Amino acid sequence: MTRIWNDPADFADEMTDGFAAANGRHVQRVTGGVVRSTESPRGQVAVVVGGGSGHYPAFGGLVGQGLAHGAAMGNLFASPSAQQIQAVAKAADNGGGVLFTYGNYAGDVLNFDAAQERLRAEGIPCATVAVTDDIFSAAPEERHKRRGIAGDLAVFRIAAAAAEAGNDLAGVERLARLANERTRSIGVAFSGCTLPGAEEPLFSVPEGRMAVGLGIHGEPGIDETDIPTADGLAELLVAKLLEEVPEGIAAAGARVVPILNGLGSLKYEELFVVYRRVAQLLEAAGLVIVDPHVGEYCTSFDMAGTSLTLFWLDDELEALWETPVDAPAYRRGSVTPAQLKAANGNGAADADAVPESDEASREAAGTVRAALEVIAATVDANVDELGRIDAVAGDGDHGIGMQRGAKAALAAGSAASGAGAGTTLARAAAAWADKAGGTSGALWGVILTGVAERLGDHGKPTAADVAAGVADGAKGVMDYGKAEVGDKTLVDALVPFAEALQRNADAGADLPTAWKAAAEDASRAAKATAELLPRMGRARPHAEKSLGTPDPGAHSLALIATAIGELFEGRNHHA
Amino acid sequence: MTRIWNDPADFADEMTDGFAAANGRHVQRVTGGVVRSTESPRGQVAVVVGGGSGHYPAFGGLVGQGLAHGAAMGNLFASPSAQQIQAVAKAADNGGGVLFTYGNYAGDVLNFDAAQERLRAEGIPCATVAVTDDIFSAAPEERHKRRGIAGDLAVFRIAAAAAEAGNDLAGVERLARLANERTRSIGVAFSGCTLPGAEEPLFSVPEGRMAVGLGIHGEPGIDETDIPTADGLAELLVAKLLEEVPEGIAAAGARVVPILNGLGSLKYEELFVVYRRVAQLLEAAGLVIVDPHVGEYCTSFDMAGTSLTLFWLDDELEALWETPVDAPAYRRGSVTPAQLKAANGNGAADADAVPESDEASREAAGTVRAALEVIAATVDANVDELGRIDAVAGDGDHGIGMQRGAKAALAAGSAASGAGAGTTLARAAAAWADKAGGTSGALWGVILTGVAERLGDHGKPTAADVAAGVADGAKGVMDYGKAEVGDKTLVDALVPFAEALQRNADAGADLPTAWKAAAEDASRAAKATAELLPRMGRARPHAEKSLGTPDPGAHSLALIATAIGELFEGRNHHA
Repeated sequence: MTRIWNDPADFADEMTDGFAAANGRHVQRVTGGVVRSTESPRGQVAVVVGGGSGHYPAFGGLVGQGLAHGAAMGNLFASPSAQQIQAVAKAADNGGGVLFTYGNYAGDVLNFDAAQERLRAEGIPCATVAVTDDIFSAAPEERHKRRGIAGDLAVFRIAAAAAEAGNDLAGVERLARLANERTRSIGVAFSGCTLPGAEEPLFSVPEGRMAVGLGIHGEPGIDETDIPTADGLAELLVAKLLEEVPEGIAAAGARVVPILNGLGSLKYEELFVVYRRVAQLLEAAGLVIVDPHVGEYCTSFDMAGTSLTLFWLDDELEALWETPVDAPAYRRGSVTPAQLKAANGNGAADADAVPESDEASREAAGTVRAALEVIAATVDANVDELGRIDAVAGDGDHGIGMQRGAKAALAAGSAASGAGAGTTLARAAAAWADKAGGTSGALWGVILTGVAERLGDHGKPTAADVAAGVADGAKGVMDYGKAEVGDKTLVDALVPFAEALQRNADAGADLPTAWKAAAEDASRAAKATAELLPRMGRARPHAEKSLGTPDPGAHSLALIATAIGELFEGRNHHA
Repeated sequence: MTRIWNDPADFADEMTDGFAAANGRHVQRVTGGVVRSTESPRGQVAVVVGGGSGHYPAFGGLVGQGLAHGAAMGNLFASPSAQQIQAVAKAADNGGGVLFTYGNYAGDVLNFDAAQERLRAEGIPCATVAVTDDIFSAAPEERHKRRGIAGDLAVFRIAAAAAEAGNDLAGVERLARLANERTRSIGVAFSGCTLPGAEEPLFSVPEGRMAVGLGIHGEPGIDETDIPTADGLAELLVAKLLEEVPEGIAAAGARVVPILNGLGSLKYEELFVVYRRVAQLLEAAGLVIVDPHVGEYCTSFDMAGTSLTLFWLDDELEALWETPVDAPAYRRGSVTPAQLKAANGNGAADADAVPESDEASREAAGTVRAALEVIAATVDANVDELGRIDAVAGDGDHGIGMQRGAKAALAAGSAASGAGAGTTLARAAAAWADKAGGTSGALWGVILTGVAERLGDHGKPTAADVAAGVADGAKGVMDYGKAEVGDKTLVDALVPFAEALQRNADAGADLPTAWKAAAEDASRAAKATAELLPRMGRARPHAEKSLGTPDPGAHSLALIATAIGELFEGRNHHA
């Protein structure tokens, strides 16, 4: 469990501050994460990694000469926002374009893709290689759906070495992709981890048992067994990885880098006992071990568990692997020290001036702020439940992410004093997306931005304006998240909500009435997502737990829609 | 808790094998531990560190260019044996003498001192600096009694840098001593740790509470509080360390290296949040922070806890601190890679030929083997209890150490086929000391060797021979361990046992009769050590637990003496 924090909501920021303070020789704090504190050659491709916090040394500990140029560091187990990623990439850019590489999780993909589009719009060339090394997270024929775990290290290092060697963006992307194609991992866990301030672990494994194939945020594994001996564990890990030798490689005589990774509480001593047998087994299979790695490379807070990665070298990759590295948590060989950079100036942008608005819209802005208060209070009251239901099939960050987003939105909306309704909500939307991180943060940013644009800063918004805004938001979410109704996501509740709102507004209902009916539809639809269904093709040993557990995104949308409906009704009463 | 092992008795050996297999670029496995796998300049002082296993990266992870030349790696939480230390030092020696440096624990001091004497006898100059950084383990006026914790790193690094800079043994010793005088640490813990195969943790801290000043093996702390916030913890650690600025230093303007060390399960993220505030507080006190360290440097398996060390630099120490290091778990700056060594040849010595013996002594050797079987069975039956009572005031390794020693002694005694009683017991004694490690291993080696010399390989041993041997052993133990009767150690039971045996033998009793009476005296004396008394001057927040808990060494001696007495009686019966 996590024991030490101040305000849990500040944990990720304070952690990043302390990390940067302790590692000034290697990294520099910038908005959104860290970049190297050392100069890179002009024109060198910048390798930007990132993801949620709680996986140290991933991701900030891997920034430094010979490794990443920057890391976007999200909240705990939550993707960094597109704003964070964009800010880090701009601070890391050396004029040679940016290669994004990160573990393949829905929230990260959404946010990195959005950042990539914005940077391209600004004229910065970008490419992306999402890491998909976890062989138990999807079948071989769906490799693109697999999650990224400790195999990140192999792909990050090759990308960085390729940049260091002077490759252009296309060359770096090709080599990073090749590294990803030749990296396979499998993980096991003996216990869950508890995020700061949480009452309970994200998930648990029964005493004496081992979950096989479990993800680094507690995503369901594919099997559960008794805890084996150290040798038995080595045999399981090696056997599974040798069942999936990458295409075109003969195992006998192949050169591999084994990475035996500790997830947090399984200690080095135990890892070495396991590695002893791993090395024997790899050699018995005719493999040649190159530069073995045993340690913590991608953790899950204090989860007790381990993963084994095999990185199958070819001559080109092996030559790149010898590139020296000097990062806070990862050093290889002897780096020629580069000059320290001057302090980096990607600090927070100045607050824009508030655009002009009329009295009617400023009055409506009061309603927007009241709604933001209701949202924040609703999320606060349900944060534990949202985390719990997300932990059934996801990474358990939904409650915390929603809470940070809603709190930041309320603060930004309140700070926009004198603004019209549209600007007030637009700022709240941007703050939500930035602070919440993760998938849900990005999607709520899209929804609220859609509504904000229809509200505008002039005139009293009508039910039709609101309905059109929600419809725009729903369309944006579907485009952005590539989800359809029936995929058991937020969309399942959002689309019926938007449609009912539109229908009732078209029929001439006032906003409270139209909203109430729409909220009821959303609640029904959210409940329907609770039907027991495998998600993303994964087997679910904990499936019994998810009986009756709705999709957390759909559920929180329904809760918020209902609470705002009550606000509107209450106001009506008093009006 | 520890989850992964094969046979717990093999854990430390297998861990060392796996560690060496994973780190062939840096270290080479030798009898007793590891040495650098890279060449060192001829004539360079060899810095040899060591201690029990379970503290990774201490001690093997700190061997490599710019740091230690070798590490003697004992069993879990048990000192390496004098044989192990001697073997590692001989493999590490470059012809410039050996500087031993290690944490100040009774078992380590005994074994390192014994190894030092043997090496000096062989003509290898040696010096020793025991690290005493833990300010809560004894009062300032008794600094020499303090334990060594993560401050080890500062002393090890300075010793190694001094050797690298070409200092002779006296110069290296002076600088290591200076570093130790300027190093202060304080630790806190939130949970205990569980050794492989153990049913229960070595100790526990109540949920939500924090033990202050607790040692890395669970030695009692000086206080217990509620778990503070991260900032509150930083304030506690910094305040305590600033209360004891080393003599002659003005805090304002002083340059310090802070080392915030994780004990195992407190994660890097939490350490960074704490470090954020530590840095602010040190700066507010006017200190200049140099090269901050935040990470795992000396762990206690998976204990949740942390320690803060301040290493107060002067110009000479700061210049040495910049020496590049390339060790498996610790790398700083850019090392010029040295040539790899050829495989080292300190392998196990060939078994000596068995010395000549007569029929009577070979028959007595059967009794020796039977006694060794009884000892091993008695220890097996009591291993958990011995560990538990040792954990009250010590490091909890007594049961495991005794078990390993007794098992190894039985194996060596059984393997000495055709040998007389003296040789059989002498080999058993050597194996016990070597495999058990720790204080008790060294002392049991001394006792059994004393007896073995009086048994000889010719003639049937008499009660007087055995009594004289035990008396020799008791004298050896007092010389070796510098303990007197009344110090609440093994000596409290051993001396009455030896005296009673002598008295009864002198009075003409046969061995079974003399032994039985002596064993009764030993049992009474062992029970008397259970009186509640602070040990080594430390306050004991868990003192209530030790009511009725005898000294574990005295207790195990009494158990074994009683069991052997029963063996002798049984044989008498059948004879």
